[in-house]
Amino acid sequence: MLNVIVTDPPRADLAEVDKLAGYGVATVHEAIGRSGYLGPQLRPNQQGTRIAGTALTVLCWPGDNLMIHAAVEQARPGDIIVITTTSPNGDGAFGELLATSLVSRGVRGLVMGAGLRDTQELRDMGFPAWTAHVSAQGTVKETPGSVNVPVTLGGQLIRPGDAIVADDDGVVVVPAAWAEKTLAAARAREANEGDKRAKLASGVLGLDMYKMREPLEKAGLKYID
Amino acid sequence: MLNVIVTDPPRADLAEVDKLAGYGVATVHEAIGRSGYLGPQLRPNQQGTRIAGTALTVLCWPGDNLMIHAAVEQARPGDIIVITTTSPNGDGAFGELLATSLVSRGVRGLVMGAGLRDTQELRDMGFPAWTAHVSAQGTVKETPGSVNVPVTLGGQLIRPGDAIVADDDGVVVVPAAWAEKTLAAARAREANEGDKRAKLASGVLGLDMYKMREPLEKAGLKYID
Amino acid sequence: MLNVIVTDPPRADLAEVDKLAGYGVATVHEAIGRSGYLGPQLRPNQQGTRIAGTALTVLCWPGDNLMIHAAVEQARPGDIIVITTTSPNGDGAFGELLATSLVSRGVRGLVMGAGLRDTQELRDMGFPAWTAHVSAQGTVKETPGSVNVPVTLGGQLIRPGDAIVADDDGVVVVPAAWAEKTLAAARAREANEGDKRAKLASGVLGLDMYKMREPLEKAGLKYID
Amino acid sequence: MLNVIVTDPPRADLAEVDKLAGYGVATVHEAIGRSGYLGPQLRPNQQGTRIAGTALTVLCWPGDNLMIHAAVEQARPGDIIVITTTSPNGDGAFGELLATSLVSRGVRGLVMGAGLRDTQELRDMGFPAWTAHVSAQGTVKETPGSVNVPVTLGGQLIRPGDAIVADDDGVVVVPAAWAEKTLAAARAREANEGDKRAKLASGVLGLDMYKMREPLEKAGLKYID
Amino acid sequence: MLNVIVTDPPRADLAEVDKLAGYGVATVHEAIGRSGYLGPQLRPNQQGTRIAGTALTVLCWPGDNLMIHAAVEQARPGDIIVITTTSPNGDGAFGELLATSLVSRGVRGLVMGAGLRDTQELRDMGFPAWTAHVSAQGTVKETPGSVNVPVTLGGQLIRPGDAIVADDDGVVVVPAAWAEKTLAAARAREANEGDKRAKLASGVLGLDMYKMREPLEKAGLKYID
Amino acid sequence: MLNVIVTDPPRADLAEVDKLAGYGVATVHEAIGRSGYLGPQLRPNQQGTRIAGTALTVLCWPGDNLMIHAAVEQARPGDIIVITTTSPNGDGAFGELLATSLVSRGVRGLVMGAGLRDTQELRDMGFPAWTAHVSAQGTVKETPGSVNVPVTLGGQLIRPGDAIVADDDGVVVVPAAWAEKTLAAARAREANEGDKRAKLASGVLGLDMYKMREPLEKAGLKYID
Repeated sequence: MLNVIVTDPPRADLAEVDKLAGYGVATVHEAIGRSGYLGPQLRPNQQGTRIAGTALTVLCWPGDNLMIHAAVEQARPGDIIVITTTSPNGDGAFGELLATSLVSRGVRGLVMGAGLRDTQELRDMGFPAWTAHVSAQGTVKETPGSVNVPVTLGGQLIRPGDAIVADDDGVVVVPAAWAEKTLAAARAREANEGDKRAKLASGVLGLDMYKMREPLEKAGLKYID
Repeated sequence: MLNVIVTDPPRADLAEVDKLAGYGVATVHEAIGRSGYLGPQLRPNQQGTRIAGTALTVLCWPGDNLMIHAAVEQARPGDIIVITTTSPNGDGAFGELLATSLVSRGVRGLVMGAGLRDTQELRDMGFPAWTAHVSAQGTVKETPGSVNVPVTLGGQLIRPGDAIVADDDGVVVVPAAWAEKTLAAARAREANEGDKRAKLASGVLGLDMYKMREPLEKAGLKYID
Repeated sequence: MLNVIVTDPPRADLAEVDKLAGYGVATVHEAIGRSGYLGPQLRPNQQGTRIAGTALTVLCWPGDNLMIHAAVEQARPGDIIVITTTSPNGDGAFGELLATSLVSRGVRGLVMGAGLRDTQELRDMGFPAWTAHVSAQGTVKETPGSVNVPVTLGGQLIRPGDAIVADDDGVVVVPAAWAEKTLAAARAREANEGDKRAKLASGVLGLDMYKMREPLEKAGLKYID
Repeated sequence: MLNVIVTDPPRADLAEVDKLAGYGVATVHEAIGRSGYLGPQLRPNQQGTRIAGTALTVLCWPGDNLMIHAAVEQARPGDIIVITTTSPNGDGAFGELLATSLVSRGVRGLVMGAGLRDTQELRDMGFPAWTAHVSAQGTVKETPGSVNVPVTLGGQLIRPGDAIVADDDGVVVVPAAWAEKTLAAARAREANEGDKRAKLASGVLGLDMYKMREPLEKAGLKYID
Repeated sequence: MLNVIVTDPPRADLAEVDKLAGYGVATVHEAIGRSGYLGPQLRPNQQGTRIAGTALTVLCWPGDNLMIHAAVEQARPGDIIVITTTSPNGDGAFGELLATSLVSRGVRGLVMGAGLRDTQELRDMGFPAWTAHVSAQGTVKETPGSVNVPVTLGGQLIRPGDAIVADDDGVVVVPAAWAEKTLAAARAREANEGDKRAKLASGVLGLDMYKMREPLEKAGLKYID
Repeated sequence: MLNVIVTDPPRADLAEVDKLAGYGVATVHEAIGRSGYLGPQLRPNQQGTRIAGTALTVLCWPGDNLMIHAAVEQARPGDIIVITTTSPNGDGAFGELLATSLVSRGVRGLVMGAGLRDTQELRDMGFPAWTAHVSAQGTVKETPGSVNVPVTLGGQLIRPGDAIVADDDGVVVVPAAWAEKTLAAARAREANEGDKRAKLASGVLGLDMYKMREPLEKAGLKYID
C-alpha cells in the first residue's frame, strides 16, 4: 500500500449536495435504496444539527493523527472531513485546533471512526462532529497514511468527493454520481410521507394503508381474543 | 411458535399506573423488591421525561418492522409500546410515521430493543422513547411475529398489560397484578427517603443512620491512620 | 487483601488543584506527558461542567455499595469521590441520597466505574458525575472493601489524594506530587495554543507550522493529481 | 420479590428429554418453531459434547454464588443446572467443587450467564458447561436469591423442569409441555434433512429444491454477465 | 441499490492463489503493505487449517440467508464464499446443508460476518469456516440481496474474484490484480524471516538487528538501574 | 511521562514462583485474598498449560511494538513478558520472531493486552500466551514507551518482578513481596479443598458443610412445595 495524497479529486456537485441537506439521513438512506448508512456507532457531538458536504477522506494509523494535518491543505469549501484508521482506535485524534484550521478553509464538519476531544469547545464554536468515540487520549504524529483515497467506515465504502449527509440519526454516504437521482428520490419520498403522515394522524391504520392484512393472513398470523 | 395477535389482553389499572408515574424508575424498582429493571442498554431519546403506561408488546424479526404496523390497531389510550426482536438487532425499526400513528391512538411512548430513527423529529413532537440503539438503517416488512404475547427485554419478562415506568434512569416493568401494592411501597419508600435526605443533608452519616459500624467491624474492617 | 479505611491520607495541595480546574482534561493530559486519562468509558451525566478536586478512593464489591457509605465519613472539602469495583459491574451503586450526604461534607463530584441512578435529580441538584454506566439496578450493602487505598480505573492507578480533573472529554488523574509542575506545563501549553490557534485561523497550515513536509516526504508519501 | 426455593417442581418427562439429546441444538430450535435459543454468548467449555436434561434454575446476585450451594439439595438425576444473575456479571461463580457436588446427585451439566472457573479441571472430570464468561474472580456467599423459579437467560424464559439441550452451537430451551411434540418435529426434520443432504451433495441446487427462482425474479433480482 | 447476481466475474489466477496458501495470513498482510486484514472478529471454527481461494461474495439482509442459496449456483472450484449482511447480524445463516451444496461445487471454505451453526458437523466434514459469530438462531429466506458485487467486511473492501487467505490468525484479502506481486513479496519476506529467526534464536537482539538503539536514544529513552 | 527502561529490577524469588505454578490461578487468586486476577479478557492461545514466572513489564503505544524489541534485552530466565498499551489496542504486536528471541533468553510466556499473531506457530513451538486479542494486523516501530515500570492490565497493578501465574482460567499477579505467604496460603487452601471434595463427592451438602442454613433462614428465604 503506497501512501498517497490525491490532490484534487472530482467532487459531487455542491449545489445538489446543498439541497440534500434539506432531507434527513433516514430519508436519504431510503432514497438510495436503503444503503449507505454508516451505522449506529457514529454519534453526534451536538444535538439538532443537519449538514451535507463532499467527502475529504483521510486514512490514519491508530493513535496517530499525522495525516489529518496533511489533509487540511486538500480541503475545499463545502467539504466534510471523513477520517478512519487502519485498525480500530478510539484515541483523541481530533480537537479544537484542527477544527479551527478546517473552518478557515470552509470545511463544514467531521465524520470520524476515531476519538474526539475538546467536545465542549467544538460545540461552542459550532463545528459539528459525528464520531465513534470521545476521548482526551493524545495521539502521535509519526506514521504516514493517505488522503483522498477510498476508505471504509461503518461498513460503507466512501470515495473522495462522495456526498455526505449527517444529522442526529447518524451519517449516510451518497456516491457522487448518484447525487442528482438521490435528490429526486428524496423529494418524492418526502412528498409521499407528508400524505402518509396526515392519514396516519387522522387514524388510518398502516395495516390498511400498506395493504398488509392479506399477506399477514397468508403467512398464518392468527388473531386471538 | 405460532404467530399470534392477542386482541384485548387485560391491562393494569390505568388509574394506578398513572400514580406510579409520580415515582422514579429507581424508586419503583426498589419498591417491587429490587426487580423488574430492564437494564442500562435502554437509553432515553430525550432528557427529563418520566412516563408510565400499560405494555403493548410486540415481537419482531431482526431488521423487520412488519409487526409494529400490525400492533398499532391493538393500541389503547395509556399504552406504552414495548418492542423486541427474536434475535439482537439494532436496525431503525421505528420512526416518526409510526409515532404519529400511535399518538393518534393515545399511546404514551416507546420502549424498544431495536433501533430508533427520526430522533430529532420525535423529540420535536414530544413522543418519548427509550431504545437500545439509534439507527437510520431501514427495515423490511416481510416476516410475521406476534403482538401482545409475553416477551423478554433486558433480562425481564414483560406480559401485555403490565405497568411500565420510564425516566432518565431507564425502564422498569411492574406485573399488572402488583401495581397497587407497588404503588403503596413506592409511597412508603419516598416518604422515608424525605426523612433520610434531611438527616444526611444535615451531616448525619449513613454509617450511623443505617447502623453499619458494627457489621463492618465484625467483618474485619480496619481503620488505619 | 485486608479491608481497610485509611483515615486521613495526604492530599494534593488544594490551591493548586483549584487552579488545574482552569484547564481542560485534554490539556492536563498532555501537560503530564500524555498520561493519566481514565478512558472513554467514563461519560459525564451533565454537559458543560468542569471540576477539579482531590481523590477520595473507594473499592467496592460488584453490586454492593456498602463502602461508599463508609467513605462519606472520610470526605474532606475539595474531594472528588472515585469509586471502583473489584470486578466489572454496572449496577446503580450511587444516587441522590449519597450525593446529598457528600455535598454536606464539601465533596465536589463523582467519578465511578459502576452505575449511576437518579440521574435527573443529580443534574437538578448540580452534583456532577462521570460514570461508566447509568443504571437503576439496586445494590446490597453486605461485603466490606476499602477506602483511601490505591485503585485502578480506566487503566490508570489512582492514589488517595491525587488530583482529579473532569470535563466533557472525560477524567484525568494527576499524581499529587506532580500537581505543581503539571499546572506550570498546562499554563505553558495553553499560552502556546492561543498562538497556534490564531495562526491556524488565519490560514497557516499545520503542515508548515509543525514542519511536517520534510518527514512526510522522507517517509515516502506521494502527491498524485 | 420474595426469595424462595421451590422444592420439587414438575419436570419434563426424562425419557423424552433423553431422546431430544439425539438431535442438535439447531435442529431442536427449528423444531419448536425457530424459538428457544439462548443466544451466542453461551459458549461450551469443551468441544464435541451434546447433552439434554431438565432445568434446575438458580437466580443469584452478581458476584455471589450463595444460591448455587442452596440449589444442590434440589438437584435430581437428569437435571442441568441453569444459573443466572439479577444483573449482568461475569465473576467465577462456579468451579470444580460445586461440580463434584452436583455430579454426586446426578446432574448432567451447567448452563450459566456468569463466569466459570477451574475450566481445565471440569474438562478433565467430564462435567460439561456452557457459560457466558470464563473467570477466576472469586464470589461471596452473602445475599439470598431463588431456586426453581422462572428465570430469563439469553432473552429466553426458562421455567424449572423445562427441557434443555446443549451442544457446540449453544443451548436451547424447550418448554416441558412441548417436549413430546418437539421430539416428533425434530425426528421429522432430521429425516427430511437426510434426503435434502443427499440431493445437495449430488449437485441439486437449493434454488431449485426450495423453488426460489420465481420469488427472486418477482422481487426484481437481476442476473448480469 | 438494485439487487443483482453477477454471473461470472473475473477471478484471480487460481494457480497463484494456490501458492499464496503456502504463506500465513500475517505474512500475506505484510506482503501487501500491511493492509487487507479482515480484523480479529473473524474467528476460525477449527484449529490448524490454512486455505486460499477466490472470493464468491454475497450480500444478505440481517436474519435472512436467501442469497446464500442463490450464490451456490455461481460457485466455481477454488472459490471461498464471503458473506456479509447489510447491517450487523449474528444469526445462524449457514450450516451443514449449505456446506454440502458448496462442497459439491468445489468451494473451499467460508468467511462470514454473520453466525455459523452445525459447528461440530462442519468440523467433522472438514469444511473450514471463519465467522464473526456462532449461533443456532434460524434465519428466514425472504429478502433479496446481491451476489458477486463488492462488499465490505471487517473494514476491507472485497471484490468478487479477489484472493482470500485464511488461517488461525484470521483472514486477509488480496486484490485479484495484486496476486502475483503479493506472492513475490511473501516469498521474499519469508526467506528474510528464516534468516532473522536463526539470528534471534542464537541470541542476537532485535535492537541490534533492526538498528533501533540510535533512534531510541534520539527519542529521549533513558536507561535506569 | 519520561520514557525509561529499568535495567534490573528486583524480582520475586524464582524458587517460590516455581512452586506457585503447582497451584491454579483460581486457587492463587483466593490465596491472596481474592485479588490480583487480570480479568476474563485475557484468553489462552493454547489449552491445558499452566506457568508461573516473574513479570518483565512493557508499556507500548497503540499499534506500535517498538518497546517489545527493546524489552528483550532486559529479559532474564524465569520471566514472563507482560505487555500493555497506553490506550486500548488489539493490533498484532507479537508473533513468532519475538517469541523466538525471548525463548533464547529463558522467557516462559506472554501476557498481553494487545493482539497476538502467528498463533498456530506459537502453539507449535510451545510458547504459551495469554492475550486480549488475536490479530494479524501489523504494527509500526516508531514511538518509545517504557520497560520494567509499573503497568496496569485488566484492572490490576503489575510491578516488574511480581509473580505471574497463568492457566486456562486466565492470569493472576502476586506482588513480589507476597510470594512466600501466598504459597503457604495456596498450600493450605488446596489441602482443605481435598477434604471438601471428598465430602461433597460422597453427597454431603455445601449447605451443611458451610453452615449456610441458618443465615439463609434469617435472611428470609422460604421453601415452597
